[in-house]
Amino acid sequence: MNTNPTTISAPAGTPYISVTREFDATPAQLFRVQTDPEFVPQWLGPRDLTMTIHEYDVRPGGSYRYTHKSADGEEYVFRGVFHTVDTDTLVIQTFEFEGAPGEVCLERASYEKTDTGVRLHTHSVFPSVESRDAAVESGMEYGINESMDRLAELLAKEEES
Amino acid sequence: MNTNPTTISAPAGTPYISVTREFDATPAQLFRVQTDPEFVPQWLGPRDLTMTIHEYDVRPGGSYRYTHKSADGEEYVFRGVFHTVDTDTLVIQTFEFEGAPGEVCLERASYEKTDTGVRLHTHSVFPSVESRDAAVESGMEYGINESMDRLAELLAKEEES
Repeated sequence: MNTNPTTISAPAGTPYISVTREFDATPAQLFRVQTDPEFVPQWLGPRDLTMTIHEYDVRPGGSYRYTHKSADGEEYVFRGVFHTVDTDTLVIQTFEFEGAPGEVCLERASYEKTDTGVRLHTHSVFPSVESRDAAVESGMEYGINESMDRLAELLAKEEES
Repeated sequence: MNTNPTTISAPAGTPYISVTREFDATPAQLFRVQTDPEFVPQWLGPRDLTMTIHEYDVRPGGSYRYTHKSADGEEYVFRGVFHTVDTDTLVIQTFEFEGAPGEVCLERASYEKTDTGVRLHTHSVFPSVESRDAAVESGMEYGINESMDRLAELLAKEEES
């Protein structure tokens, strides 16, 4: 199983959150599980939330919307639009938690082939430092770490099958 | 004619550009000329460029794309997607100059009623300070000032008619 570390960077006083993680997979394999709505609910978010996709139209100008539901019935809805979708290379999309309307951030995910696999690098930029800080304080780091580990597990499982 | 000042703010070391301008119009009048593709080519950009709209679908999930052409035939193409469209209140959209692909920024425009008219406030956030600086150095300030003046002229003309 892939046990590569996840590096999360959120420098104080900036509106950014960056994440880097390497996977033992090809860019095409990683891109597929990250963008295919059949796979997305299997890795996106913490393990204790159940994800339901309402829309996931991965193309420039396409929209997405999904709900994360906790065991005690709490629901968190997220939505956005895809600006750039370059297969196996680059995705740029907006992201909004509907519980904090108007605090929209822009996320960029790039896929880089390495000697042993693929390096995922994401860069999110928020409208303000305060907005970024609020996202960090909401437990985003925990969600990112679990998402990246689940992604590695899913890739390992897909490779076996 | 409206001669209110345009305030442009781009603090050093940040990825932001903010613009504030008041207009002698209602939020509904300003929102209409800012979003209706019939009016947009009449104010968006410097006076010496001719704007052609290829797509301008102002709704959440809608896309836009347009070309600015100079007198000597130089063409500049821009595109993006609308994330939020709250009539007369708030628009959040992505923005990319196709000549600098991948340098996508997120723009927020809000409309606030004042005692004498409406205050437009825009806040753009770039993926990095370098990307913001490059936009500023490209002459963005000149384009913003002319756009805001043209917008005031268009609103005055529409009010007369």
